Amino acid sequence: MGGDPTLQLRIFDLNCWAIRYLSKRRQERVRLIGDMLRQDSFDLVLLQEVWSEQDYSNLKGKLGGCYPFSHYFHSGVIGSGLCVFSRFPILDTLLYQYSLNGYPYMLQHGDWFCGKSVGLIITKISGIVFNVYVTHLHAEYCREKDVYLPHRLVQAWELAQFIRHTSKAADVVLLGGDLNMHPGDVGIRLLRSWTGLRDAFAEATRFEGCEDGCTLIPNNCFTVKTELLPFPLGIRIDYILYKAMSSVTVKCEELKTTTGTAPGMDIPFSDHEAVMATLHIQRQGQAVGDNLGTAEPMLVDVVTEARTEVVVGLRAAQRQRYSTGRMVVLALLLLLLQAAAALGALAGLAAGQPFPKLSFSLLAFLAIGVLLLATGLHLFHTMEVKMLQGTEEQMRMALRALQERP
Amino acid sequence: MGGDPTLQLRIFDLNCWAIRYLSKRRQERVRLIGDMLRQDSFDLVLLQEVWSEQDYSNLKGKLGGCYPFSHYFHSGVIGSGLCVFSRFPILDTLLYQYSLNGYPYMLQHGDWFCGKSVGLIITKISGIVFNVYVTHLHAEYCREKDVYLPHRLVQAWELAQFIRHTSKAADVVLLGGDLNMHPGDVGIRLLRSWTGLRDAFAEATRFEGCEDGCTLIPNNCFTVKTELLPFPLGIRIDYILYKAMSSVTVKCEELKTTTGTAPGMDIPFSDHEAVMATLHIQRQGQAVGDNLGTAEPMLVDVVTEARTEVVVGLRAAQRQRYSTGRMVVLALLLLLLQAAAALGALAGLAAGQPFPKLSFSLLAFLAIGVLLLATGLHLFHTMEVKMLQGTEEQMRMALRALQERP
Repeated sequence: MGGDPTLQLRIFDLNCWAIRYLSKRRQERVRLIGDMLRQDSFDLVLLQEVWSEQDYSNLKGKLGGCYPFSHYFHSGVIGSGLCVFSRFPILDTLLYQYSLNGYPYMLQHGDWFCGKSVGLIITKISGIVFNVYVTHLHAEYCREKDVYLPHRLVQAWELAQFIRHTSKAADVVLLGGDLNMHPGDVGIRLLRSWTGLRDAFAEATRFEGCEDGCTLIPNNCFTVKTELLPFPLGIRIDYILYKAMSSVTVKCEELKTTTGTAPGMDIPFSDHEAVMATLHIQRQGQAVGDNLGTAEPMLVDVVTEARTEVVVGLRAAQRQRYSTGRMVVLALLLLLLQAAAALGALAGLAAGQPFPKLSFSLLAFLAIGVLLLATGLHLFHTMEVKMLQGTEEQMRMALRALQERP
Repeated sequence: MGGDPTLQLRIFDLNCWAIRYLSKRRQERVRLIGDMLRQDSFDLVLLQEVWSEQDYSNLKGKLGGCYPFSHYFHSGVIGSGLCVFSRFPILDTLLYQYSLNGYPYMLQHGDWFCGKSVGLIITKISGIVFNVYVTHLHAEYCREKDVYLPHRLVQAWELAQFIRHTSKAADVVLLGGDLNMHPGDVGIRLLRSWTGLRDAFAEATRFEGCEDGCTLIPNNCFTVKTELLPFPLGIRIDYILYKAMSSVTVKCEELKTTTGTAPGMDIPFSDHEAVMATLHIQRQGQAVGDNLGTAEPMLVDVVTEARTEVVVGLRAAQRQRYSTGRMVVLALLLLLLQAAAALGALAGLAAGQPFPKLSFSLLAFLAIGVLLLATGLHLFHTMEVKMLQGTEEQMRMALRALQERP
């Protein structure tokens, strides 16, 4: 069996930044991406932020010849933005929508509306079963005071759990996507140690591309330079991760990134750089066994660290649930007071017209508006509390299981 | 290996109808359920509609001695209502929230607020790995004109897909819950044929309980008699389903249901009857292989039937998306008109005060209210369209794969 031929697999991953009306030179860039993918034939293409289904259809039309199989993952108001193009038949798919994904009232950040998810496609190449995951986690808008960290950690945990539970029949697990986490961040350490996934950049025999494998670089004309000021080389937040599950070995022969402007063009493909990996996959005689690939004490540490951050988020969500609840009560009291005053006036208790009608009704409308808004927010933060609690409990259970292991 | 001893497993499933402030004699019934579970020792207890976490804590406190392991699945505004008590360690858990679950504005039905989900716990008994699923699907409020059918079908499909993708390392799959579907309904045929799950009621060697295994019966003092008028015996909507995955056989030795009033009491445990199964599980020498248990032409038929219903739901959702979108536009137009009139008045174009101030501002507030409401609904129905489309595509892909099989 050791003589099985090596399977070479080329994977392409890119956050395409294709938001209708908002992303600069979107259609031109999507066309460029399509042209490049058609020329440089990969085996699997994992894309994020393809928000417009029209863009997906155009890509599908253009790439039908070299990538006959594709799938778009629907979710949220404007779609998940996730899609996959493949040279090999897609046998099955599954979508898991993260339970937390920012706040609907943070319109300027907009993550909530995207229904951030992880998509899974299953494919079989030369008899080897591949579980291929594509995802995009909540963005980090301010690294110093990252209010979305607990949500992103819940997502990283759910992603890890989803991969663990769905990949048991796979030979190889591949994950590509914009994780919005730097390589040393607690979320990526949690994801990697809890699943045993390896970082193609760290494992690659050859590397070519931006220094340190960065995928958001000052050299790209679409990136916001001020956000990258603390990181002169840029940051690495887009990943290709992999893991051999059974009697298979996977080696990353080469990793490449694009480096800003697309070859022969005046613009880059996206505000992110693409990540391209060449993997060598070979069957082994003996099953390797499913190990986490991380020493247990370290695993305990990273789960504990993540749990601490989730608890911080839980406290904040509880405070917000409380203050929106108080707002509901206050608005209700104001309405009751107004109703009493109005009834009093009707019953002739007051000699004349106690308030000007206009301001009286404006105040009532305001109170109703506040009541509705505060109720909505209260329900939302109640859900947030539940999900953070649920994740915290799961992490606690995982820690207990780890500590009880002989 | 054929001589392996038989493992006997007793499973209890009940929709507890424990909704705070709404369910009659809730606390008394939860106490009764706890007492009974303590006396009659089961191996696995799968409960639904335990909406109050206080009730769960009370049960946990009471049952700690006989069921040392338990898990509550958090989700939605008021929790998922799903929990599991077990005599054996719970090794891992995962929650999958269905992407569609009714409408937030159908307050009288309230399903939307419950975050209907499927919970998975993994346990290992005598070396056999059990994947135990507990779920509760969207209720059916009117069988003749069931507007929730497409949502329930999406849930049944997602449930089946979730089970298929997460159970590959299991030896035995168990599913218990209130599926809100009659045994012949398309949703349950889809679930059973797509997963290969067997119905404990149909397979049981011995049966004891309500006629036809009904779990919602006119004899129960909490059921709404008018709803059961077309079904004099009642209906069967609560199930225990099972499947042997690998080199294991599972046989249902006995199935029981409660029959209304609890023994020695004047009230039943719930408005649903409990389902109790005794399974015999034995290791076999040879792997049985993962088959769907359903002839493929039949499988094609049932997926096609389900897909047709999903398409009907998709058309309805598209109509609602369109009409809410039109409402947004109309409200915007009204506001613009008012703004123009107000500006006109300010600029002195009109001789006097053209409208009474009060009705003018009331109208503006009304328009703003309609605008906000219609925008919310439009976003919601847009999401609904996406999810129905996604399911329809997945079903189409499944059909293609089935038809292409040699």
